[in-house]
Amino acid sequence: MLDPQNLLAAFDRVTDYWSPKVIGAVNGQLLKVAKLKGEFVWHAHDGEDELFYIARGRLRIEFEDRSVDLAEGDFLTVPSGVRHNPVAEEECWVLLIEPASTKHTGEEQTPLTRSIEEQMK
Amino acid sequence: MLDPQNLLAAFDRVTDYWSPKVIGAVNGQLLKVAKLKGEFVWHAHDGEDELFYIARGRLRIEFEDRSVDLAEGDFLTVPSGVRHNPVAEEECWVLLIEPASTKHTGEEQTPLTRSIEEQMK
Repeated sequence: MLDPQNLLAAFDRVTDYWSPKVIGAVNGQLLKVAKLKGEFVWHAHDGEDELFYIARGRLRIEFEDRSVDLAEGDFLTVPSGVRHNPVAEEECWVLLIEPASTKHTGEEQTPLTRSIEEQMK
Repeated sequence: MLDPQNLLAAFDRVTDYWSPKVIGAVNGQLLKVAKLKGEFVWHAHDGEDELFYIARGRLRIEFEDRSVDLAEGDFLTVPSGVRHNPVAEEECWVLLIEPASTKHTGEEQTPLTRSIEEQMK
């Protein structure tokens, strides 16, 4: 339990794009790492904020009224209920912080949807 | 609200050692940055985990039965109720994730104790 982990090394567990892996927890929030490339899917998380931290690369998050560009080392909390769509022109490594209950595609069921069990592997 | 921040740049707000500054939030957890140097104080946080992420430098966290060395990019969640004491031989920059209610010196009142109001400045 008290074993430190290295954030960048944790990405070794990630083999597929858009398929988060749980690497830690703090007070009911899960830390997940994911490799992103291309466009995800428009979705929102009702009642749950979602924090994005860019460990490597760049990510654009599109919102309904604008988009935000995140560079390496940047972070942003997407507030609960806000529809968003992450777009990575090139491979991007992100740390996500969100509750265990968060479905990464929101209520959208898509080929990219991964269950929490798959995210724990 | 939807303005991205850069983690390393956020440390510009930190002027004193052991004096955390709140830089963000996600689902009731606060993200705080702090610069550490020297030894802190033995304490625990009842009912609240505390995550340490090393943004720059190295940190040793002493526990009652052992100590853990964290290098740049490493992270560790100290579970609620576990007594610990951070020690930085050289200046170390940490990101902390903990609830708004967490007192950074636990129930210990020391000259290093900072109120949440001071941490929001």
